[in-house]
Amino acid sequence: MKGNYDKAFENVVRLRVMSILMVNAQFDFNSFKELLDVTDGNLASHLRNLENQGYIQVEKTFVGRKPQTNYSATVAGKIAFQEHLDFLENLIKENKS
Amino acid sequence: MKGNYDKAFENVVRLRVMSILMVNAQFDFNSFKELLDVTDGNLASHLRNLENQGYIQVEKTFVGRKPQTNYSATVAGKIAFQEHLDFLENLIKENKS
Repeated sequence: MKGNYDKAFENVVRLRVMSILMVNAQFDFNSFKELLDVTDGNLASHLRNLENQGYIQVEKTFVGRKPQTNYSATVAGKIAFQEHLDFLENLIKENKS
Repeated sequence: MKGNYDKAFENVVRLRVMSILMVNAQFDFNSFKELLDVTDGNLASHLRNLENQGYIQVEKTFVGRKPQTNYSATVAGKIAFQEHLDFLENLIKENKS
């Protein structure tokens, strides 16, 4: 089959995190939390998983005095995610023909 | 988001089984095994999972003297899978805009 199914994205939180990082240069922890409506622990675990695979990178900064944790997709992450989407797109096409 | 992500399909074997059953009225165990290149145990476990959710149904017959186990998608399964594909399609579209 075309594309490549990647188990790293076999979860709706990781799928949506990656999707958000494809269109946003960076995105912070609290914004993810709000948008995806998940707990701190759950989100942190999925982000760590993607980071460990080398698909996203983390940067800690300060906004004024407030710490902020920003995430961005790596080149490897973008390529792997695109391959994964290609696989899914192909699957959808097969179901339409 | 449009569509509905269903954890029942959060696995490439279950995703592909369901995809096959959307376009084939029925499909037998050995054909799945060959097409998906998975072990008996792995395949049986995923099929049972989908059956337990009411998404596929199983029928045991004989072809000559050989037993054959056939699977087909239920109406509930087809609806749930279509919703899942709609969710994925929407995600793909967001990444193209």
